[in-house]
Amino acid sequence: MQHLTIVTTGGTIDKIYFDDKSTFQIGAPQIGEILQQLGVAFSFEVVPVLRKDSLHLDDADRAAVRAAIEQQTHRHILITHGTDTMVETARALAGLAGKVIVLTGALNPALFKGSDAVFNIGCAVGAVQTLPDGVYIAMNGRIWDPARVRKNVEANRFESL
Amino acid sequence: MQHLTIVTTGGTIDKIYFDDKSTFQIGAPQIGEILQQLGVAFSFEVVPVLRKDSLHLDDADRAAVRAAIEQQTHRHILITHGTDTMVETARALAGLAGKVIVLTGALNPALFKGSDAVFNIGCAVGAVQTLPDGVYIAMNGRIWDPARVRKNVEANRFESL
Amino acid sequence: MQHLTIVTTGGTIDKIYFDDKSTFQIGAPQIGEILQQLGVAFSFEVVPVLRKDSLHLDDADRAAVRAAIEQQTHRHILITHGTDTMVETARALAGLAGKVIVLTGALNPALFKGSDAVFNIGCAVGAVQTLPDGVYIAMNGRIWDPARVRKNVEANRFESL
Amino acid sequence: MQHLTIVTTGGTIDKIYFDDKSTFQIGAPQIGEILQQLGVAFSFEVVPVLRKDSLHLDDADRAAVRAAIEQQTHRHILITHGTDTMVETARALAGLAGKVIVLTGALNPALFKGSDAVFNIGCAVGAVQTLPDGVYIAMNGRIWDPARVRKNVEANRFESL
Repeated sequence: MQHLTIVTTGGTIDKIYFDDKSTFQIGAPQIGEILQQLGVAFSFEVVPVLRKDSLHLDDADRAAVRAAIEQQTHRHILITHGTDTMVETARALAGLAGKVIVLTGALNPALFKGSDAVFNIGCAVGAVQTLPDGVYIAMNGRIWDPARVRKNVEANRFESL
Repeated sequence: MQHLTIVTTGGTIDKIYFDDKSTFQIGAPQIGEILQQLGVAFSFEVVPVLRKDSLHLDDADRAAVRAAIEQQTHRHILITHGTDTMVETARALAGLAGKVIVLTGALNPALFKGSDAVFNIGCAVGAVQTLPDGVYIAMNGRIWDPARVRKNVEANRFESL
Repeated sequence: MQHLTIVTTGGTIDKIYFDDKSTFQIGAPQIGEILQQLGVAFSFEVVPVLRKDSLHLDDADRAAVRAAIEQQTHRHILITHGTDTMVETARALAGLAGKVIVLTGALNPALFKGSDAVFNIGCAVGAVQTLPDGVYIAMNGRIWDPARVRKNVEANRFESL
Repeated sequence: MQHLTIVTTGGTIDKIYFDDKSTFQIGAPQIGEILQQLGVAFSFEVVPVLRKDSLHLDDADRAAVRAAIEQQTHRHILITHGTDTMVETARALAGLAGKVIVLTGALNPALFKGSDAVFNIGCAVGAVQTLPDGVYIAMNGRIWDPARVRKNVEANRFESL
């Protein structure tokens, strides 16, 4: 893998805290800065498409993500996405020819100590360059087929269907 | 991947600082605690084989690592290793049947802010479950064939031969 | 200072993120664990009185904090508190005899990377043992007289009145 | 306190890891960047005088530190210093008129997760602005009189003489 295209859609991974509003909102994508600091041995670009909590994504949003990917010339695509509807978006991306697409995100914001964000990005990066064309989810240290995984909201983790 | 066997050999990833000696030494393996806290969706065990700076590994050490892996019943093996001779050890593990082996480590100790350790472990975990049998290196966000990679000591990064 | 009594009331310093609710709530007090890990050379106890965003504190809450402090036998009191009404609570504690009271908190949750929580706690600890009896606020690296400070909400910092 | 003068001398607080040398060396002072990011409500300047492990400081070094402080026009001085001979340096600074001087440092490098550096800097900042003229040490959450403290090397902490 010489180049990685990163599509960002928002989600917990990018949440930051605004004290003046006593609230938590989705900020700018963290992943570019993270990979820059780590000194990865491939080039990458960040394509911000949405900045939403994934509970608020609708069909038009998913069509926008799909359209953004279709326009890319490179084969390897990593998508950062909220966890609540990550599986739904992954299924909506089925059938894109000539692309390896891995979706990942975080159960805790990347800016939190002990966040799973960097580990999950690592899993996605390790998997995207070794998998055949298709759509996959990298969460909880596993590479999942979107047709056979769900988020267990109570346990706050991904598990096999 | 239901289960991951983790072989630890020391290296920078496990270095800690001893103020009373004004020195930096290899401590207990960090990887088990890291994966525990991340809540990974697979079982794992940590098999400590060595606790050395990889510059000090010799043929007997590499034979011990190989023997330890041969005794494992599971297919997926992740090895944490110092970066200076990681390539050499990877080559010494060639030919182990029925195993996917990924070596990783860190250019900065896992306990350092901004360390590459968690990201590298993520890459290795993402790759080990998607690759065919063989030996691989996961460093700088790339999955490398040990026959075609080297550590560039001056630039402090892995690159293609 | 041989002993420090710590009164906790909630606030941003203790906020944690609940992904299953996509929300941010006040968790258990962080300060005890922080001081434990730092290995401080004094004994301390944590007295949890409230667990609220300081915007929601009312007169009864402030009376409860005052009553909790009056019951303490030790002289040095550190209070963790939300920043929005920290000044108001500090003023409501005026006149407690034989006590040095320092209020502190955080503009970013203690669990956030780059949070000001640990630094602010340090300032409060350094000041509480060196000040005469009275009530003080430790924020933004300054020790403030509650009669002459305010939180500038827009700039998200404390400043002189 | 409107202004804080910071004199840096090296020590563990500024240690960084050089993987290419498998060693740990004293880097550029961390404290300026730390205070900048925290958004402190006072101005400050960093005066780098030495960059040494404090075990290697001699009388000439201590004279240089004293001379550097004598040249400062501001009253509040914070010194970052290695812990091994911090007490010795503090005693060598006795008698400087019109100055409050607080020495601090770290038992673990500032760049380490869980380092005491930020907390110690906080303690020193909180104390320096509230103390009368004199020389003090801020370590392990206590403000010490240099005449009555020592570093217990085995226990790796400061304690009363």
